[in-house]
Parts: sequence; C-alpha cells; structure tokens
Amino acid sequence: MKDETKYELFNQARQWILEAGEEIRKSLDKPYQVDTKKDRKDLVTDVDKQTEQFLTRQIKSIYPHHKVMGEEGFGDEVTSLDGVVWIVDPIDGTMNFVNQQRNFAISVGIYENGAGQIGVIYDVMADVLYYGLKHEGAYKNGERIKRLDHNRKLEDALIGMNSFWSVPNRRLDETKIHQLIRKVRGTRSYGSAALEFAYVAEGIIDAYITMRLAPWDVAAGVIIVEEAGGVTTQANGHPIDMLQTNSIITCNPSIHREIIDGYIKLKPI
Amino acid sequence: MKDETKYELFNQARQWILEAGEEIRKSLDKPYQVDTKKDRKDLVTDVDKQTEQFLTRQIKSIYPHHKVMGEEGFGDEVTSLDGVVWIVDPIDGTMNFVNQQRNFAISVGIYENGAGQIGVIYDVMADVLYYGLKHEGAYKNGERIKRLDHNRKLEDALIGMNSFWSVPNRRLDETKIHQLIRKVRGTRSYGSAALEFAYVAEGIIDAYITMRLAPWDVAAGVIIVEEAGGVTTQANGHPIDMLQTNSIITCNPSIHREIIDGYIKLKPI
Repeated sequence: MKDETKYELFNQARQWILEAGEEIRKSLDKPYQVDTKKDRKDLVTDVDKQTEQFLTRQIKSIYPHHKVMGEEGFGDEVTSLDGVVWIVDPIDGTMNFVNQQRNFAISVGIYENGAGQIGVIYDVMADVLYYGLKHEGAYKNGERIKRLDHNRKLEDALIGMNSFWSVPNRRLDETKIHQLIRKVRGTRSYGSAALEFAYVAEGIIDAYITMRLAPWDVAAGVIIVEEAGGVTTQANGHPIDMLQTNSIITCNPSIHREIIDGYIKLKPI
Repeated sequence: MKDETKYELFNQARQWILEAGEEIRKSLDKPYQVDTKKDRKDLVTDVDKQTEQFLTRQIKSIYPHHKVMGEEGFGDEVTSLDGVVWIVDPIDGTMNFVNQQRNFAISVGIYENGAGQIGVIYDVMADVLYYGLKHEGAYKNGERIKRLDHNRKLEDALIGMNSFWSVPNRRLDETKIHQLIRKVRGTRSYGSAALEFAYVAEGIIDAYITMRLAPWDVAAGVIIVEEAGGVTTQANGHPIDMLQTNSIITCNPSIHREIIDGYIKLKPI
C-alpha cells in the first residue's frame, strides 16, 4: 500500500472510530437491548449493531470498492482477502460493556491483499487510542510505543489468559496450562481480546493466549503487536488465517517458542 | 468514633495518600530496587518501603497514640485492635507496579476498637480515589457509589479470581472452582486485591475470591464494600480476623451464600 493511501485510510478510520466512541459513551445513559448469540455467554447489544452499521456505512460511502468484514454481519460476505478489507469489531468485550460499562474497545484492522496495513484499537471509556501502521511502529495516544524488551524471561512474565483454559476443556490440555500458571510471575484476565493485544504491545502483559478468536477480534491487534516488536501465531505456532477462527498466542518473541513447546498441548479437534 | 474525628482522620488520610501517590508517580522515572520476600513471586521495591515510611511518619507525627500496622513493617507490632489502628498497604499490587507501572493502589483502613471506620483505596496511576466512611456510604472521586443491585444472579456475574485457584492447590478443591467458572458469566483477574475490592464496591465485578490475604490487603476494602451494600467474609462464611491472614470472599450479598455453599470446598489445613 502506498504511504499516502495508508495515511489517508488511517486518518479516516481514526476519525470514524472516535465518532463511534463518542456515540457509545452517550448511549450508556440510555437503556439498550442485550441479546445472546451462540450461547448464553455470547452477548450482543443494540450498541454493537448500531456501531457496526455506522462504521460500515461510513466506509462504504467513501470507499465503495473496499470490503468490510464485521462481527455483527452488516458488512460483506468476505471469502477472500483480495483488495482492501476492513475487519471491524464494533465492541470487543461486550461482556465488559454490559457488566462494567468500561474495558471494551472498537477494533478496526485494514488489510490489503491479506497483508495487515493499519490496526486501530480504541479503549472507548478510557479514551485511549492504540494504533499501528505497517513499517511505522505502534502508538498509544499519538506517542510511539517503545519496542518490546526481547530479553524477557518467562518466569518474570505476566500472561493474559481467561481462566476457562485452566478448566478441563475440549481444546487443550489444562494440566500444561496449570504448569504455565505456576511458572510465570502471574496471570491477568481483562475480558477484551483487543485490549489484551494492546497490552501485549505496550508490554504490560507479555503474552495473551486464547483458543478461539474470530478475525475481527485480532485483525487490528496483530498489526499493533507486530509494530511493537511482538509476534502473533496460532497456538501451534502456525500463521493465523484471517478468514477463519484461530487459536491465538500473541506475545513477546522471547517467550513465544518456550510457551508453545512447553505449555500448550492442543487436543485433536 | 465521633463524626468530627472521623472526618478529620479521613481528610488527613486522603491528603497524605494523595501526596504519597504523587511521589510514587515521580519515582517511576527513576530506577528502583526490586527484591523478593517469602518467595520469588512476592515482590517488594524501594518505593513500597519509602511510601510506608512516609505514611507512618505522618500518622505518628499527628497521632502519636494511634497504632500503625503496615505491610513492610515500619509501623508497630500490632497484637490487638484496641484504640485507633491504621492498617496500611503502601503499594497493593506490587507485581503490577513492577511489570505494568499501573493498576496498583495505596490502601489505608482506619479501625477503632476493631470496627472499620474509614477505608481509602487510591488507584495511583488512574488518579481515582475510592473511599468509604462507616454509615456514610462509599465514594469514587467524591461521587457516591450506587448501592449494589441485590438481585444479581450468579450466572450473570463476573468474578475476580486469580487463576491460581483453578490449579490444584493446598487450600481448596479446584474442581469446584472449575464448576464456578463454568457457571458464571466470566472471570477477571486484575492483580491488586485492593482494586478488586473497589471494583466489587462499584459493581463492575460481583465478587472477588482469594485464599490468603493479609490485613493490609483488605482493611480498606471491607469498609468500602460494606458501605456500597456488599459483604466480606472468610471463604467459609466466618467473619474476618483483622489480626491474621484470611481467606476472602467479598461480594454482592445476593450471591455470597450460593458461592460459599456451592463452589468453595476448603481443604483441611
């Protein structure tokens, strides 16, 4: 992607995201509808839907030939990453939105022919904007994020992880996760994948591990983490497929291999 | 405690805590020493020690007859709660202080003859001050915190809990905790007991459960939670002993009994 296109798209994305955030903050005073999707823990609200509709409408009004892949389905049926694709999560961390009225984010990744160009994650209530532009670094509220310290040791690390993965489950051997929990300095769980990516980029956690994320949960995060000197793969070390759900480990490269080899034992699907 | 005494002590405590917070924020730019205490995960820094020394010195200069119980041992050897006792954690969440440079708190509880009168928790980097005064409610940055909704259901709850308690351990049956994790809407882990108490008071998590906390980890929190309409006990439902380490469940009363009876099975010590 040409630099000038990248800057134009970034500025446009940022403006729409800030506008959407402003609307979400206003909406917190009014009643809104909460529904469930796949299961009782998979929440969606009117506000998720309205935010995605707003972003999709804005994108399509200026860039009718770009594709939009969105969590709530107001974008396109995207089956290939050819061209420019906006991958949108209107509210990442809907459970936090509902229970906490904070600690949720708008996440937008912009890809060109499958390559991540621009990632923006907006912590709406804290009014903190994280972004990454390919080859140009990662930023928090306009300030360059320092590159991750690549001498981080696993025993000094904080790991972001949902407690769900330390309970017997279908995807991985929880007893290896128990060993990881004992090994590291500590674990944290914040309830928003996008924000946990941002925290990895900032270095306030050293890894975030989870077994099932959709493209919109990760599209912006992988770009920001990479631009901060981090790495994101599936939990088996393979590259992510941005057209599918993936298991995810995003982390400081100094502990990536050690976690995968020593502590993640996936179950056959 | 007389109202005027309570207000005087609160205003004094708040002023010293804000000053201490200001010093801590300044200290982040300079190198500081990190040591370990009981084990490699039990961290302490120069900043913990300096902050406790500062607070103890201030308290003793104005209230020489008050006792001070502090995490780092610069206060008194407190063996009874007679009289007025300040229970001080200079930095609650030292691991966050070291790894994140945020998400830690100064916690100060003031007790008279064993009864909690004043609790102050200061999220230093966010500059958010939580406090509770006996019979007068809980506050966040000067605004009254709404009383907890006592119709909260366990399946809609977010629970604060360290992943450690879902790993086989000496204190409780982790398989019951696994059932709890499946039952609730979600779990969160923030790494500061004081802040998790404050979050319970605010209602952004509905319970916080842990198996071993010192008096200074909880002294302020129990007062603030109580004044917000919450309840704190040992994990078996018994009252807390503010002269000992305790297991802790602090939560919305609507789910207190259900968690204790259904999901916490303590092991004999």
